[in-house]
Amino acid sequence: MQNTQKYIQDSREKFLNELFDLLKIPTVSADSAYSKDVIRGAEKVADFLEQAGAEKVEICKTAGHPIVYGEKIMDAALPTILIYGHYDVQPADPIELWTSPPFEPVVKKTDIHPEGAIFARGACDDKGQFFMHVKAFEAMMKANELPCNVKFMIEGEEEVGSVNLGIFIKENKERLKADIILVSDTGMLGNDTPSITTGLRGLSYVEVEVTGPNRDLHSGLYGGCVANPINVLTKMIASLHDENKHITIPGFYADVVELSLEERAEMAKAPFNEEHYKKALDIDAVYGETGYTTPERGSIRPTLDVNGIWGGYTGEGAKTVIASKAYAKISMRLVPNQEPEKITELFSKHFESIAPAGVKVIVNPHHGGEPVVTPVDSIAYKSAAKAYEKTFGKTPIPVRSGGSIPIIALFEKELGLKTVMMGFGLDSDAIHSPNEHYGLFNFYKGIETIPYFFHYFNEAMK
Amino acid sequence: MQNTQKYIQDSREKFLNELFDLLKIPTVSADSAYSKDVIRGAEKVADFLEQAGAEKVEICKTAGHPIVYGEKIMDAALPTILIYGHYDVQPADPIELWTSPPFEPVVKKTDIHPEGAIFARGACDDKGQFFMHVKAFEAMMKANELPCNVKFMIEGEEEVGSVNLGIFIKENKERLKADIILVSDTGMLGNDTPSITTGLRGLSYVEVEVTGPNRDLHSGLYGGCVANPINVLTKMIASLHDENKHITIPGFYADVVELSLEERAEMAKAPFNEEHYKKALDIDAVYGETGYTTPERGSIRPTLDVNGIWGGYTGEGAKTVIASKAYAKISMRLVPNQEPEKITELFSKHFESIAPAGVKVIVNPHHGGEPVVTPVDSIAYKSAAKAYEKTFGKTPIPVRSGGSIPIIALFEKELGLKTVMMGFGLDSDAIHSPNEHYGLFNFYKGIETIPYFFHYFNEAMK
Repeated sequence: MQNTQKYIQDSREKFLNELFDLLKIPTVSADSAYSKDVIRGAEKVADFLEQAGAEKVEICKTAGHPIVYGEKIMDAALPTILIYGHYDVQPADPIELWTSPPFEPVVKKTDIHPEGAIFARGACDDKGQFFMHVKAFEAMMKANELPCNVKFMIEGEEEVGSVNLGIFIKENKERLKADIILVSDTGMLGNDTPSITTGLRGLSYVEVEVTGPNRDLHSGLYGGCVANPINVLTKMIASLHDENKHITIPGFYADVVELSLEERAEMAKAPFNEEHYKKALDIDAVYGETGYTTPERGSIRPTLDVNGIWGGYTGEGAKTVIASKAYAKISMRLVPNQEPEKITELFSKHFESIAPAGVKVIVNPHHGGEPVVTPVDSIAYKSAAKAYEKTFGKTPIPVRSGGSIPIIALFEKELGLKTVMMGFGLDSDAIHSPNEHYGLFNFYKGIETIPYFFHYFNEAMK
Repeated sequence: MQNTQKYIQDSREKFLNELFDLLKIPTVSADSAYSKDVIRGAEKVADFLEQAGAEKVEICKTAGHPIVYGEKIMDAALPTILIYGHYDVQPADPIELWTSPPFEPVVKKTDIHPEGAIFARGACDDKGQFFMHVKAFEAMMKANELPCNVKFMIEGEEEVGSVNLGIFIKENKERLKADIILVSDTGMLGNDTPSITTGLRGLSYVEVEVTGPNRDLHSGLYGGCVANPINVLTKMIASLHDENKHITIPGFYADVVELSLEERAEMAKAPFNEEHYKKALDIDAVYGETGYTTPERGSIRPTLDVNGIWGGYTGEGAKTVIASKAYAKISMRLVPNQEPEKITELFSKHFESIAPAGVKVIVNPHHGGEPVVTPVDSIAYKSAAKAYEKTFGKTPIPVRSGGSIPIIALFEKELGLKTVMMGFGLDSDAIHSPNEHYGLFNFYKGIETIPYFFHYFNEAMK
């Protein structure tokens, strides 16, 4: 892999400029106003794959945003690695909180990234991360050192539930045949504490609408007489947690697999400094379920969070109105054995049942996703660990993450393939937030580490 | 008053067209984007006053929107009536719920107004209502039948708390000397059930801001670990009412004067049909404080309503974010003896005290207003009652309203003057809501009734 690594060192500036070109395209999948930009994003990804040496590159149409496919089959006898990533990004709002425009990438230094970090929506999630695979592949191709077959599947709907990717997978099982799936869409503990994600939470996401009177009312004339949909909504949401921050939906915890004390003790070995954590978020206390530590609350426990709420007058000044309607977006993170569809149903049933007389309630489910746990004793995991040891000089720590990549469970179900999650982002990278960024250290270290995974995986599969 | 009434009958079309001109100006006082329109509105009012025969017409500058003044002093020996109204209007949003544009007035028939109603923001609150006084004055002038001196004070900040009117009144006590204040900015029970408002609720209005982490966070990575400002805000708001819908702020009810059973029995005589009420609002149940009827809840009891709430992602689709901040606008309607400043302070103290560790809370007070009760045995009230008997053929019912006109309490305090509230709107007129309207019957009946008030008041004061 020496020539590969040399090519990477020689191409650092080129790689960065190319990533900037990709980050400049606002591929916001949730908002139809950006549909054309999403297409441009897919075309750009296809170009990069071709330039890197991929064959059979195709922008595969779906009912939604397209999936970009490409492959390089060296030899049918060699193991095949299927690389998954996504070129779509989260909406950038609240736009006013960005210190530089979200789609004009720029490198700035931070305390955590003293050598600089790329600031842009998608820098870490997931353009910056899947692009490492494209560039690592390019380096191995240019150096004539590609030791495995490669397939790329880069989608444009990860941030909106990957609905069409599921269909694509079902219809392309032959084309997607591989030995392992490799994904960089997660994080690691720190730049001096490499880790590999071995679990993901599932997701259930709903939008609720509470309707009171059939029109907005004057709060003087009607205040006190009718159910105010906003007040009612706050009461309904508040009741979803008890005083110990347990979720009160009947049956919510029924399928949760509790970890043994040994497993929890093992988890507790991963470095975590609560004072640093609070300081980084500027909070005076953490807040969560009684009986669990912060890392446990964020990974092995299910949660319920309001992601958005709105209703009534939200403009300048004062308006004395009782709104006709109030809304909220609510998501639940799920842990292994919880079924998103079942949880969504439990939520809907419960939420409708707690609505008081005087209002009507509608619950609209958005996409969901199943939780995942990946084994640490597999050939692929061990190959990944060796690759990290080579580039970081340290054995990576296996860590269960709180995030969700719903498609990982589907890969296993439909393709019968396990996934290795080699994520190089940091929790502090502000993904899904204003000022998302991705360290230059992380970007380059990822590109360097990936070829070693190919190397060790090829060796282990011999 | 015969010539006056003839002039009114002959001028119906002219009066309506003139009101339309006034309604076309979007005099939204809460939103600085409309500042120039508010000035245009003031100029239009001044023009109308001059055309009607007022003298010393002046657009009086204030630190905010101007106050229009005008007067007609016939004889120092005659009683003087000070007419108060406001030319500013509530914001029109949610604009998409209007069936015709809010600033393009149009007459449409409704079930309650079979002869037609004027649809426009401000049609009833308060352009259509204060304009009745300008036209009644014009009619008496043209007919040479004006029996009292008149002063007009039409302001542009009623919907944002009348802060500068208070200063104006303190600085113009001599100019504003009068025997009674006459205001049409309230409603009556029905077109066949005339009523006069004898009480108003006070108002305390605050905006609250809950801050959790210093930036928006990914709800997968941080969900369950930190206080989510939206969840916390819902819990805090929900806790402001107990299961009987009593307000839980310590000391909130301390100064409330409870009505006697006799007074409540008197109130219960006013016609109220709960089935019609529910049907008109399309609700399956009323909702309010245990132990009180709907009319009581809406007039003699204090309330707490959220008028607006917002935070997190509110756009299309799903975003898995924990917002850094959540906001709400909350107003409390107060009843006699409750002090707005004291209530605002009680609220702030309580709201800050219930914030859990992990969030910071800021409470910003908006304008407030004191509650009012007016006597029914005064010369002015009796004169008004006689005027209604003349035009409606029925004795009006004295009614305490749930709304607030904070300035009425100030009139009494600063000018030593009582107010008669001759409101001709209906509760169903959708003031502060989309599709605000004002019945043609009500508009013309008001113009006809006002001169009789002048007549009887002059007679009674002799």
